[in-house]
Amino acid sequence: MTGRPPNQPFGVKSENLTIVEHRVATSSRAQRNGHAGGVLWFTGLSGAGKSTLAMAVEQHLFGKGYQVYVLDGDNIRSGLNANLGFSPADRAENIRRVGEAAALFANAGILCIAAFISPYRSDRERARQAAGKAFHEIHIDADLAICEQRDPKGLYAKARAGEIEDFTGVSAPYEAPADPELTVDSGDRSIAACVQDIVTYVERAFKLK
Amino acid sequence: MTGRPPNQPFGVKSENLTIVEHRVATSSRAQRNGHAGGVLWFTGLSGAGKSTLAMAVEQHLFGKGYQVYVLDGDNIRSGLNANLGFSPADRAENIRRVGEAAALFANAGILCIAAFISPYRSDRERARQAAGKAFHEIHIDADLAICEQRDPKGLYAKARAGEIEDFTGVSAPYEAPADPELTVDSGDRSIAACVQDIVTYVERAFKLK
Repeated sequence: MTGRPPNQPFGVKSENLTIVEHRVATSSRAQRNGHAGGVLWFTGLSGAGKSTLAMAVEQHLFGKGYQVYVLDGDNIRSGLNANLGFSPADRAENIRRVGEAAALFANAGILCIAAFISPYRSDRERARQAAGKAFHEIHIDADLAICEQRDPKGLYAKARAGEIEDFTGVSAPYEAPADPELTVDSGDRSIAACVQDIVTYVERAFKLK
Repeated sequence: MTGRPPNQPFGVKSENLTIVEHRVATSSRAQRNGHAGGVLWFTGLSGAGKSTLAMAVEQHLFGKGYQVYVLDGDNIRSGLNANLGFSPADRAENIRRVGEAAALFANAGILCIAAFISPYRSDRERARQAAGKAFHEIHIDADLAICEQRDPKGLYAKARAGEIEDFTGVSAPYEAPADPELTVDSGDRSIAACVQDIVTYVERAFKLK
């Protein structure tokens, strides 16, 4: 929290090397919002329910007064990451950018829900480093068999037919989190029950006392 | 605003093709915050005062209750755009990503101040397209002679000495906005006066009546 006093003219030489920092403290943002900013990183197989749960949790937390925003494939792949494909390098860069964008939201005091398969531990670790202590990894955990049975986008069928290469869980690995902040069993429970797990966790971890 | 009801189990087949959309309306976010989200895009020469004004405006608007956040070189070049250099292609990609990130903030209901030289009209137009009507271009306008005299980072001196190539205003063009939403004369006025110009504009353009 430094900076030139607001009534000082621009050209004062002794100030020329001042690094321009944010003049709104992170703690002031939290105070205003009633909760800390942070990243809720939803990782899991295709079909595990990440996007569905992300949107439901966003709605639920918004109703409770939270500043909350979901980043997912839809708003990221068509914008920020529109110039990325599905090569290994592009997939890593996709997750890297999302991690950095989510960290900016956290820094702005927002609870940012990032919902991405993000199958590789190393990529998720990098996202964690971007946001530091504000990063909370949430494993949306359903068995492959259940996800494949759901197959909401018909992608498993295509992957089995060899029409999609390197499909997570079929022809590419999913590296489950070793020590996530929260695991949500989304295999055979209702959406409402899963949402409640996450909201309860958020209230404990982010809400100001 | 569509989506599966929250108490519905995951596997219901008729819902399998539902596109997962945000279930918090943009208008609900605005209502909560008392203002619309948007992008305030500060463009201008190095030394014109973009970062200083961005941080001062952020502080001022936060004090008035706004959800507001600054994106500038410091938090972007060290994170989201850490893998970009200063080649023409990288500079364009730098501004493209910032434009997309700012649009996400606007979509989240935040007033996002993006402070970047962004010397090319085409790059700024692309940023405008990302955020649509929420994009407001603000020209932080000081003469080159004044900026060079201030030279807060010693960059003009280096550029004149040939130590920096393609420096905006010296050895690379600055394409001034043709029709910005606001022009702030930051050449010989106080920071406080410039901040007031911008805050007045914001209150007129973004505050809910």
